[in-house]
Amino acid sequence: MLDASDFRFVEVPLPRPAPGQMLVRTVYLSLDPYVRKAIRGDHPGHEALVDGDVIYGRSVCRVIRSHDDEYKAGDYVVAETGWQQHAVIDATKIVQRVNPAAGPLSTAVGPLGMPGLTAWGSVEHIGLPTLGETLVVSAAAGPVGGCVGQLAKLRGARVIGLAGSAEKCDLVTKTYGFDACINYKESDWEEQLKTACPVGIDVYHDNVGGSFLMAMAKHLSLYARVVMCGRPADYHSDKFDGVGLGPFIGRRAKLCGLVVYDYNDDLERYVSLASSWMREGKLKIKEDRVNGLENAPQLFLKLMRGENVGKAIVAVGPEKA
Amino acid sequence: MLDASDFRFVEVPLPRPAPGQMLVRTVYLSLDPYVRKAIRGDHPGHEALVDGDVIYGRSVCRVIRSHDDEYKAGDYVVAETGWQQHAVIDATKIVQRVNPAAGPLSTAVGPLGMPGLTAWGSVEHIGLPTLGETLVVSAAAGPVGGCVGQLAKLRGARVIGLAGSAEKCDLVTKTYGFDACINYKESDWEEQLKTACPVGIDVYHDNVGGSFLMAMAKHLSLYARVVMCGRPADYHSDKFDGVGLGPFIGRRAKLCGLVVYDYNDDLERYVSLASSWMREGKLKIKEDRVNGLENAPQLFLKLMRGENVGKAIVAVGPEKA
Repeated sequence: MLDASDFRFVEVPLPRPAPGQMLVRTVYLSLDPYVRKAIRGDHPGHEALVDGDVIYGRSVCRVIRSHDDEYKAGDYVVAETGWQQHAVIDATKIVQRVNPAAGPLSTAVGPLGMPGLTAWGSVEHIGLPTLGETLVVSAAAGPVGGCVGQLAKLRGARVIGLAGSAEKCDLVTKTYGFDACINYKESDWEEQLKTACPVGIDVYHDNVGGSFLMAMAKHLSLYARVVMCGRPADYHSDKFDGVGLGPFIGRRAKLCGLVVYDYNDDLERYVSLASSWMREGKLKIKEDRVNGLENAPQLFLKLMRGENVGKAIVAVGPEKA
Repeated sequence: MLDASDFRFVEVPLPRPAPGQMLVRTVYLSLDPYVRKAIRGDHPGHEALVDGDVIYGRSVCRVIRSHDDEYKAGDYVVAETGWQQHAVIDATKIVQRVNPAAGPLSTAVGPLGMPGLTAWGSVEHIGLPTLGETLVVSAAAGPVGGCVGQLAKLRGARVIGLAGSAEKCDLVTKTYGFDACINYKESDWEEQLKTACPVGIDVYHDNVGGSFLMAMAKHLSLYARVVMCGRPADYHSDKFDGVGLGPFIGRRAKLCGLVVYDYNDDLERYVSLASSWMREGKLKIKEDRVNGLENAPQLFLKLMRGENVGKAIVAVGPEKA
């Protein structure tokens, strides 16, 4: 477990962007659970960090100076900047271009960004809940879970969330508009789930894996679809929380792995739709926001403890020039 | 582990069939691995047996006398008779009617029966291998695995088997016509599998579950379909050989549970097709056959040790009246 003493705020001279590179200024830094694993080298494509390295992180940033033909000063992008106020990056580190007219800038790392696109892939490409079907999603207060449920509501499904506190459940039902949300830390949560899903779960979006996923098997309706989205703790480890698949066979379940990058070609279309839904109040994600990079560690530690409510965002610098 | 002393051959008077019942004579008794679990009450719908009970088993049998309107003397059926030369059964114990013109009678518990229909469900309803795709099947020498591969060959797929001895691998390639078969007891079997599937596995039919299934994840091509058919040892037990699903997410795999009863409405059509394929030599299953009910225990023990090669059949009585 990390604590505040593991973080240090240091000032260093700005490097100059080489050809093909650009200088960007961080506006909103996204804090995400996978970063904990990435720090210790347990996440694909990320080497373990050593003392003095910049912590991994994506942010919405503004291009200040560009030596790349595709991007120019004043553009907004989501990029792998790490926890920095400014960064010099290759264009290859850019995850998406941001249209500032589509919605509040910070939503580019939320409902108008990868978390939203993940939900889009789950609901529109894999789970495909139909009118009146019941969709259940774990980590329902988070940016992916929250979007999954709201997109499923737009398709006419009944939507039940699972979350880890009464406050999160309130957010899920009152703000996100789910039909119900169950606190899985209550001892009778499975009874509550059964009551909420009297004819079983047709689509289960899983953000957890392991024994939690396994517990859901008996609540599935026949031929249920399970979207496996959360990378279980076992992904890059010898120890793992394995799943017994027998009960899933009994339900004739279909378990499908989701990787968001598969839907990159759908991003523009999704953002355009989601932008309308946000304006119409049909797609909402609460943010848990702090101001100033120096406050990132406390919010990150809160996220690690599962105590944050909503998408964790650090407002690092001004939106405009 | 059972041994020969656990079995006893006893003679008892024949009961008379009540209204709705019928008297049948066993012709071919099928020996199947699930029976071991059923005996100790570990298989759905089967109570644990006590000393003196008849052992569970399905057979091809001939109706001798019938008090049911749908069946008449001389009909052949597959039914839950247990290990008996004669049985009085309810019509509800009948699994399928057998058309003796469709093929050799014993194939009604093999390629023209539930094992074949299981393969049909796997290949034609779930896995759907396309021309040139690679399908891999475990327990390839068995009646389900053998049919899965042969049906996939008919669809134009490349087919690789996995089996537990050189003799079984020979059967799979020389008789069943698979493109290759790998002995998973050889230490370099995963290397051999990689060589046999240079661009990965598109469809994997799993008859094993647990850590064996898990080992296959890294050999899957992107978007591979996995048919989960073998009920893992964990199905009705607290201890289980769990599966880490992270690597399957990475491959965007789709894992689908198969239960053969879902395809009952397809049985007639399947048997008619499979009957032609058998006549044309395109669908073969080797039998491991003994004569006489008194020899059932030795063949069953061989099956439990994985030493039988082909579908285990006991020829109990004559085919004709």
